[in-house]
Amino acid sequence: MRVAFLGLGVMGYPMAGHLQRARHDLVVYNRTRSKADAWVAEHGGEAAPSPAEAAANADVVLACVGRDDDVREVATGRHGAFITMKRDAVFVDHTTASAGLAQELAEEAQRRGMHFVDAPVSGGEQGARSGQLTIMCGGSAAAYKKAEPVMAAYARQCRLMGEAGAGQLTKMVNQICIAGLVQALSEGLSFARAAGLDPLAVVDVISKGAAQSWQMENRHKTMLSGHFRHGFAVEWMRKDLAICLDEARRNGATLPVTSLVDQFYAEVEKMGGKRWDTSSLFARQEAVRTET
Amino acid sequence: MRVAFLGLGVMGYPMAGHLQRARHDLVVYNRTRSKADAWVAEHGGEAAPSPAEAAANADVVLACVGRDDDVREVATGRHGAFITMKRDAVFVDHTTASAGLAQELAEEAQRRGMHFVDAPVSGGEQGARSGQLTIMCGGSAAAYKKAEPVMAAYARQCRLMGEAGAGQLTKMVNQICIAGLVQALSEGLSFARAAGLDPLAVVDVISKGAAQSWQMENRHKTMLSGHFRHGFAVEWMRKDLAICLDEARRNGATLPVTSLVDQFYAEVEKMGGKRWDTSSLFARQEAVRTET
Repeated sequence: MRVAFLGLGVMGYPMAGHLQRARHDLVVYNRTRSKADAWVAEHGGEAAPSPAEAAANADVVLACVGRDDDVREVATGRHGAFITMKRDAVFVDHTTASAGLAQELAEEAQRRGMHFVDAPVSGGEQGARSGQLTIMCGGSAAAYKKAEPVMAAYARQCRLMGEAGAGQLTKMVNQICIAGLVQALSEGLSFARAAGLDPLAVVDVISKGAAQSWQMENRHKTMLSGHFRHGFAVEWMRKDLAICLDEARRNGATLPVTSLVDQFYAEVEKMGGKRWDTSSLFARQEAVRTET
Repeated sequence: MRVAFLGLGVMGYPMAGHLQRARHDLVVYNRTRSKADAWVAEHGGEAAPSPAEAAANADVVLACVGRDDDVREVATGRHGAFITMKRDAVFVDHTTASAGLAQELAEEAQRRGMHFVDAPVSGGEQGARSGQLTIMCGGSAAAYKKAEPVMAAYARQCRLMGEAGAGQLTKMVNQICIAGLVQALSEGLSFARAAGLDPLAVVDVISKGAAQSWQMENRHKTMLSGHFRHGFAVEWMRKDLAICLDEARRNGATLPVTSLVDQFYAEVEKMGGKRWDTSSLFARQEAVRTET
């Protein structure tokens, strides 16, 4: 299978590595050429100077870039993949982006006799490295069927959630559930400290019951030690929350706590925490508590 | 061991049953006498007409009642257990109450040469029935050591968290973590519906990753089906949150999301949901969303 991968960032770099190990005929592209060269030096294979050149003759083109406009650039831009992709080829977008973008690019692909699948992932850098990502997809069943065996190289779980945009909407639900949950955990641990309890003992006791969460189990130690370098960065979480809040304006859902937590993340950014992980809501709680 | 149990409500009734099966020499008391008679008819044993009479000659007196003042009534009231308890006996309070009450009663017990252990539980009615409660204790090591083998009759996990009040403070952390978490889950599921997704499929996909929680796994189906009869009632949660928010005023912790969720529960009460379970925050989200 001829495959192209566009965007060798923190996620894309190891994802493309898994495709290479799966013995696809792979061409990679990255905006900053030096990173593509480093990738080829490590993995072998071939780097192209533009998305269009990477995508020529590909059956499946996969992208993992930053924001909506970055996706537009590599897909429908002047040197975008859509120019050279052959009929019936599938463009898979792993970027967490808006559902509107997915619908827009799905329509454009259809006009050109091609396919588009929105396919944001969860599992973070660790999941990308270990090839254990969860992939939430939106698109036609035919396009999904063609793309799925390629994505399998780095998926623990891959699922078609509905038409174009459904993958993005599912990822939004994931981020909404995490945002309020991490803030609740931060309030709980900050309260435990204020009350003079041993927070580690508290977590040990309450983490077997109705307060249990992945975040509680996997983040409480790093939160309490003030190390916020163990996961998804605040500035990217804010990008995702902006997408959620924007979509909610359209679909009529209200997100009072998600919206408040977005504001707290803005405060974390002001504390210098753009690159801290999402559990740094705890640092904000503690800063407010210990201010004199 | 001579044991008294005060308060045969939803929790206390099955808890006292476990004590009887553990072959303690047990006397029970309940404010509404008919319930104590029903308990004796089911379990055998003996019911007393007042806390003082139940507690006479007991080594350990355990209580599970409603609010701070109910605990005061059965402990230090005119017919309270403290009047007749013998020297070195231990009063164990399973009620979720304030840490201040625990400190007040611990001091009063000490003045009388007795002991007090605050010991709120989690695990709900189901945990009480199955004898699988988590018990969070505050008090002296000596008092805890005497009470622990008795509580073992209905404990999956029992732990001394610190001095008087530490059990209550630990329970507060538990409730704080749950409040925001359930609201986040409610926002996520409501958003999923608004977005036209299949919420069951969404939960299936996202519940293996960083958004996972006990609440997501155990409550999403009942929430989506609109059945809020599967757990802890809203009016009791509001009692607990009032205790948390009151304690936070004293210890300097800030609880912005917990405080907001308390207000949402007030709205659930106005919707007729005093007796609905805590996951009914989802009903409020849906009511707001579908209002025209």
